[in-house]
Amino acid sequence: MTGIETYPLTGAGGIPAAASGHPDVATAVTAAVTAAPAVAEATPAQRAQWMRAVADALSDRVNDLVEVAEPETHLGIARLSGEVERTANQWRFYADVAKDGGWLEATIDHATETAPDLRRMRVPLGPVAVFGASNFPFAFGALGNDTASAIAAGCPVVVKEHPAHPLTHALLLDIATTALAAAGAPAGILGTVSGFEAGTELVLHPAIHAVAFTGSQRGGMALHALTWNRTVPIPVYAEMGTVNPVVVTSSGAEHAATVGAGAVASFTLGMGQFCTKPGLLLVPAGSTVLDEVTDALTRHTPRGQLLTPGIATAYVAGIDRLVAAGGTVVAYVPEPGPGNSVSAVVMTAPASALVPGSALLEECFGPVLLVVEYADAAERDAVLATLQGALVAAVMTGSSEDPELPDLLARLTPLVGRIAVDAWPTGVATTWAQHHGGPWPSTSVPSATSVGARALDRFTRPITLQGVPAAALPTPLLDANVWRIPRRVDGRARAARATT
Amino acid sequence: MTGIETYPLTGAGGIPAAASGHPDVATAVTAAVTAAPAVAEATPAQRAQWMRAVADALSDRVNDLVEVAEPETHLGIARLSGEVERTANQWRFYADVAKDGGWLEATIDHATETAPDLRRMRVPLGPVAVFGASNFPFAFGALGNDTASAIAAGCPVVVKEHPAHPLTHALLLDIATTALAAAGAPAGILGTVSGFEAGTELVLHPAIHAVAFTGSQRGGMALHALTWNRTVPIPVYAEMGTVNPVVVTSSGAEHAATVGAGAVASFTLGMGQFCTKPGLLLVPAGSTVLDEVTDALTRHTPRGQLLTPGIATAYVAGIDRLVAAGGTVVAYVPEPGPGNSVSAVVMTAPASALVPGSALLEECFGPVLLVVEYADAAERDAVLATLQGALVAAVMTGSSEDPELPDLLARLTPLVGRIAVDAWPTGVATTWAQHHGGPWPSTSVPSATSVGARALDRFTRPITLQGVPAAALPTPLLDANVWRIPRRVDGRARAARATT
Repeated sequence: MTGIETYPLTGAGGIPAAASGHPDVATAVTAAVTAAPAVAEATPAQRAQWMRAVADALSDRVNDLVEVAEPETHLGIARLSGEVERTANQWRFYADVAKDGGWLEATIDHATETAPDLRRMRVPLGPVAVFGASNFPFAFGALGNDTASAIAAGCPVVVKEHPAHPLTHALLLDIATTALAAAGAPAGILGTVSGFEAGTELVLHPAIHAVAFTGSQRGGMALHALTWNRTVPIPVYAEMGTVNPVVVTSSGAEHAATVGAGAVASFTLGMGQFCTKPGLLLVPAGSTVLDEVTDALTRHTPRGQLLTPGIATAYVAGIDRLVAAGGTVVAYVPEPGPGNSVSAVVMTAPASALVPGSALLEECFGPVLLVVEYADAAERDAVLATLQGALVAAVMTGSSEDPELPDLLARLTPLVGRIAVDAWPTGVATTWAQHHGGPWPSTSVPSATSVGARALDRFTRPITLQGVPAAALPTPLLDANVWRIPRRVDGRARAARATT
Repeated sequence: MTGIETYPLTGAGGIPAAASGHPDVATAVTAAVTAAPAVAEATPAQRAQWMRAVADALSDRVNDLVEVAEPETHLGIARLSGEVERTANQWRFYADVAKDGGWLEATIDHATETAPDLRRMRVPLGPVAVFGASNFPFAFGALGNDTASAIAAGCPVVVKEHPAHPLTHALLLDIATTALAAAGAPAGILGTVSGFEAGTELVLHPAIHAVAFTGSQRGGMALHALTWNRTVPIPVYAEMGTVNPVVVTSSGAEHAATVGAGAVASFTLGMGQFCTKPGLLLVPAGSTVLDEVTDALTRHTPRGQLLTPGIATAYVAGIDRLVAAGGTVVAYVPEPGPGNSVSAVVMTAPASALVPGSALLEECFGPVLLVVEYADAAERDAVLATLQGALVAAVMTGSSEDPELPDLLARLTPLVGRIAVDAWPTGVATTWAQHHGGPWPSTSVPSATSVGARALDRFTRPITLQGVPAAALPTPLLDANVWRIPRRVDGRARAARATT
């Protein structure tokens, strides 16, 4: 059974996707430029205070935010409530990171016989533009990881409104700018523009110094092309869609029922609208994993609307492309429902169909999982060798001593930014060790992360001060470690508690 | 007195600039691909041993290298000898950096109630391409900072031969590959190709993962365009030419004779063929600095050949462009000499001529310095506001309490990657705190450095391992700090001596 007619897109869609107008880009950017010196010169501890005020304001307004966001996103009250709290905690985390000061990479080389006194630290770039995601209106939206980490690093932010949730956007901006002002942050630290043309104008504005984007490959690459046509090119940190592979080992397949249920729970989470959605499940031929996945979908029958009519339409077209490329539908959820609802789908394809350029190797955004059976390790590795770069891979093992694991880790390392073992790829904790990025096309800058402590790096660059007298040195580079930050002095890494 | 006829390019030029053939790119890259796992899996301490072997081999062969390089570069025996020793010391430094392990950024977050066990480290990208500079055949050439830092980071390197010094290149490769083999490094860790077409083929090869380049803006931007037309784009770290500004404060101008002599010594060093050459000297109107600069040039009369006939021709054309843009020659060295010799030139222009787009704001590679007098701080700042990004700026003060210094540091910070106070910009020590990069167009990636400990970052990217059992973890991410490297554990930065 194949073909798109089986998966009707019911209903005309929820909210208008059109932009809400064309606010004045010049005004928004000028406010950011005016704020920039005060934001940069504030101590990280001061910025952390401002950020905790935003976090607390978000926590105070969970119900209001969910009430506005649910009709715009159809993500459900429970998910949206949790996401607001998560976003508040992200602001608290980046506040801690700002204050910790490790991101400054303060480095002091006192003069030697052969080299002058050299002191290096990272400085904020200035105003930056953020294009948030459709699928996480809070955690990756206007007040998501990008905005929080940019402000932590000392950069004012101008956010481009996402057309999928303008009312949520407006409330978020109102909550944050009110909280920031009350906490004493400079006016202009956070602004917004809306509309496609305004987004283009924002990226081309000479006072914008970097762009962070979460969305489609087409959107990310268009922004990249745009910035390289500026008089002064600027970096674009685009986190784009990918097919995230999950490999089930031979002994992992012995837990087929658990794997099947986990796969369905993961690929249908948020109706599959996760950049970390497992897109490809590689399972040993002869195992019962594929049967268990289809059974689990039948039992689980996830239903829900996608974020926008456009995403629903693209999903249906994507299913069609997978079928045309050799995929076969083996299970789906009937009668999806009204509005932007779509059917969750499990497909399979022979390993031989996964050749470079095949649509089977490209992301289909939404609740679809492709299960491919491999005859042996050689066929499994041949499939892995055809995959594009991805944000995350996972391995499902039989035990912590699974003999296939070391080789699989070595093969997956060049492909992805994160490898989860015996865990599904969905779920990105905002911590010190997190890396949410990966080889092209998962990101435009594979060394950059949009989540975790190192997210600040995108909005800073190093500068070295040579022979600068102590009276003119910035605090982090004084001989005395006034802020008690981690530093490297004369080649030796020192912990934060060091006072010199 | 203006016009190019005053500065004849005497002689037909030294060595042929044509490429020496078209070695097989596929063979060179295949050797690098074969070597890559062994290079990456070697401990940093092992790589450091290999690298010290290269350093010692360079130190042993100073005379041989200088003998080959002098006819190809005309840089002089003293300079070339010093540069070989400097290059050997760079290899020793990057060996120390590799072993230190701070570049791994090893980060461990043990599982909490809300997040899984996450462990992050940087991994080498795989084979990379290096395009060395013409002006430093050793320190920034085939075995320069790029190659040494890439090998320190665990990446095999394929070097594109610079057509200006093919014999020097061949000897460098022979010395290094012999030393590396004797030290036990895998064959293929270092290879080479030559010729323009081979360079293009190298950058487009799917197994090449990054490109490091030192040279002209045109060359750097061409490489960038090339890599973004690949199926999988890769980063290009291009360090390009810039006009490095030096500001003399009011009280700094009281030391006019010292400033004048220093300016001439700096801008004529290596016949001005430094990417850190001071290109623009901003001095207070009414001071005697301009007179002292012209006097110093007359007394100093630096003479020498440029590296290639092409560079000499471009220099003469560049002087012509500066004159056409409103520059006036105020001093020059007569009778430059044979071959690729050119006259060193001091020019001046009114501050009002430095408008965006003017040739006065673009690099002229070679021994020319533009001196511009400013009427007051407002005019000085207006000039600074028109400057493009640059690798380095300098400030010449009256004393360490110079009241103009703090404001000047703030104004120069957005413009450059390094600020030297009471020191000339030429001279780039390879240390922990060095940053040799800067805003576009000085580099294609303003956060990257091509010199110093952080040069390794360009050839690595982070990966996060989630829930990986201890038996399959890489050594840097084990709970026990086996290599005694700096790490961050559960959010706390720890010094290298920490054992956990």
